[in-house]
Amino acid sequence: MQERIHNFNAGPAALPLPVLEEIKDSFLNFSGSGMSITEVSHRSKWFDDVINDAIERTQRLLKLNDQYKVLFLQGGASMQFCMIPLNFLSDGRSADYINTGTWSTKAIKEAQIQNKSIKIVASSEDKNFCYIPENIPFTKDAAFVHLTSNNTIKGTQFESLPDTGNVPMIIDMSSDIMSRPLDMSNIGMIYAGAQKNIGPAGACMVIIRQDLLDLVPDHIPSMLSYNTFASKNSMYNTPPCFSIYTIQLVLKWLEDTIGGLEKMDAQNREKANLLYDYIDNSDFYNATAQIGSRSLMNVTFRLPSEDLEKTFVEKAINEGLGGLKGHRSVGGCRASIYNPTGINAINDLVSFMKGFEKQSG
Amino acid sequence: MQERIHNFNAGPAALPLPVLEEIKDSFLNFSGSGMSITEVSHRSKWFDDVINDAIERTQRLLKLNDQYKVLFLQGGASMQFCMIPLNFLSDGRSADYINTGTWSTKAIKEAQIQNKSIKIVASSEDKNFCYIPENIPFTKDAAFVHLTSNNTIKGTQFESLPDTGNVPMIIDMSSDIMSRPLDMSNIGMIYAGAQKNIGPAGACMVIIRQDLLDLVPDHIPSMLSYNTFASKNSMYNTPPCFSIYTIQLVLKWLEDTIGGLEKMDAQNREKANLLYDYIDNSDFYNATAQIGSRSLMNVTFRLPSEDLEKTFVEKAINEGLGGLKGHRSVGGCRASIYNPTGINAINDLVSFMKGFEKQSG
Repeated sequence: MQERIHNFNAGPAALPLPVLEEIKDSFLNFSGSGMSITEVSHRSKWFDDVINDAIERTQRLLKLNDQYKVLFLQGGASMQFCMIPLNFLSDGRSADYINTGTWSTKAIKEAQIQNKSIKIVASSEDKNFCYIPENIPFTKDAAFVHLTSNNTIKGTQFESLPDTGNVPMIIDMSSDIMSRPLDMSNIGMIYAGAQKNIGPAGACMVIIRQDLLDLVPDHIPSMLSYNTFASKNSMYNTPPCFSIYTIQLVLKWLEDTIGGLEKMDAQNREKANLLYDYIDNSDFYNATAQIGSRSLMNVTFRLPSEDLEKTFVEKAINEGLGGLKGHRSVGGCRASIYNPTGINAINDLVSFMKGFEKQSG
Repeated sequence: MQERIHNFNAGPAALPLPVLEEIKDSFLNFSGSGMSITEVSHRSKWFDDVINDAIERTQRLLKLNDQYKVLFLQGGASMQFCMIPLNFLSDGRSADYINTGTWSTKAIKEAQIQNKSIKIVASSEDKNFCYIPENIPFTKDAAFVHLTSNNTIKGTQFESLPDTGNVPMIIDMSSDIMSRPLDMSNIGMIYAGAQKNIGPAGACMVIIRQDLLDLVPDHIPSMLSYNTFASKNSMYNTPPCFSIYTIQLVLKWLEDTIGGLEKMDAQNREKANLLYDYIDNSDFYNATAQIGSRSLMNVTFRLPSEDLEKTFVEKAINEGLGGLKGHRSVGGCRASIYNPTGINAINDLVSFMKGFEKQSG
């Protein structure tokens, strides 16, 4: 296969082609340094420019006020599952967690393994996580409310964020960060493994409000303290330079080429609606997430049989449509259509789905 | 500056040009996948081939027996400073630490911050860490002995590993892994941030012996347990794919082009000797590490004044010799000459040093 495919993988996922081309073109000599970006010191003006531009673009795209710090950590969202209770529940306080599937469940487990006090205030486990809970009884004096804004595996997403009163939200946005404008008014922290909407694997973006940093205890390991990263502009030790560089380029594309989060949101809605509308009008394909809880990023669906699903995924690959297999824990099919996926990819996918339905239905 | 420079940075550092060229050439379409390596799923045959080849090459290069697992983690060596005492001193046992400078000191601090019992059995702090301690009084029933095989900042290196009796060594080899053959007979674990000898920033190689894995307690956070990584071939969650891919290519270069660690060692000795010999025969430059403790990877030296050092570093950059400034904590000059640095770079450096001495001496 010589051509590039349409990549519907859930993560690592498609990146904007102009970003990949810029990396390729400058790969042996970054910005006149005479070195590859992979060889440049993190203590150099070249890398300072990269990380600071990534931070400033994040501030502009999300309209952050000066109370927020933008950090880059390693270990993915999974490391955050561990760090959040360690940093914010050290004084014996309790937090509320909403369970909307695999990733929320893992976040809960990592708090419990540390014997932290948490309360699961809502769960959609009763219906195999196919919906987002509403009317949640939050605890008034909780240290924070933790939620996963988009469930990559089940294809569900909070349409809007819940009202948690005075309690700050901590949100795992790994699979929908920067996909739409965000009301930051009650958000204490956002975190996102980069490898879905904003870059390659290897970096986790953390956006944290100053008052949460004040809660971090002194006597925890340096690499597990948010204050270590906040006080050193994410460079206490060598950061994941290449991943941060790629994130910078993706944010530049998002801001300068796409035109910001309102425009990205409009494109993402158009893409998702096209796909859901086709699926809903078909008797052959069935969307698995409830209407009102459906993800704009991960469209999950089933075919009439597992055999047909297997054939579907295989034939799609032969047509240049990759990554349509559902997560191994749930089966079925899934099209992940993050920011970099263009409307042309959705058109080609729908066209293939029509042909497959005609042939097999 | 249009040409590539000689890169003497301490890390991130120079990578082999053929490796960079291969990454560049395949960057938009990796191995016929139709995707960039940055877009390929870590749960794909493409990435399985990458990580397994990196592991197998490591096994062959270091002649590992089947008791060792090769893992890739995130967070650099600094995260290991935290994980080692958490994983191996959970039962109240004590460990010996050798302090040979900044990185050992940090490793010690991260054990102490967890209130783990450790004993500093040797330190070269009395002479500003310019030598490697000998005749160390190891503790017979210690859980492990921790040491840093090469001190990047002070330019010191263990010529050979100490005899720790029956106590396994845990060695931070961030700056000299794969630079020479290694006697594994008493090594429990090696770890190395990749960004010096084996790849770009963003991945930490961990080589761990099975009996140490048996010590890891069950009830620690998943991402801080070596067993999590050992039981999932480093893919409990999304690994730093691009960094691992680059490591694979560097190891391929080391094995297939260089011809293995004996040959790499010979080249590294030739390079370092050339530079040290010139410095030792000069009245203008002074090597800072004691003979017998000198690093083959990081050659640290001083000029007659700090002003001259500043001019030296600036003029060198103009001649295409980058990264010669010493670590900000110690000043002076440093040439980091890891595996990818060719003898031609050393020749050009010595030639420049001669000219500068003549002009300024």
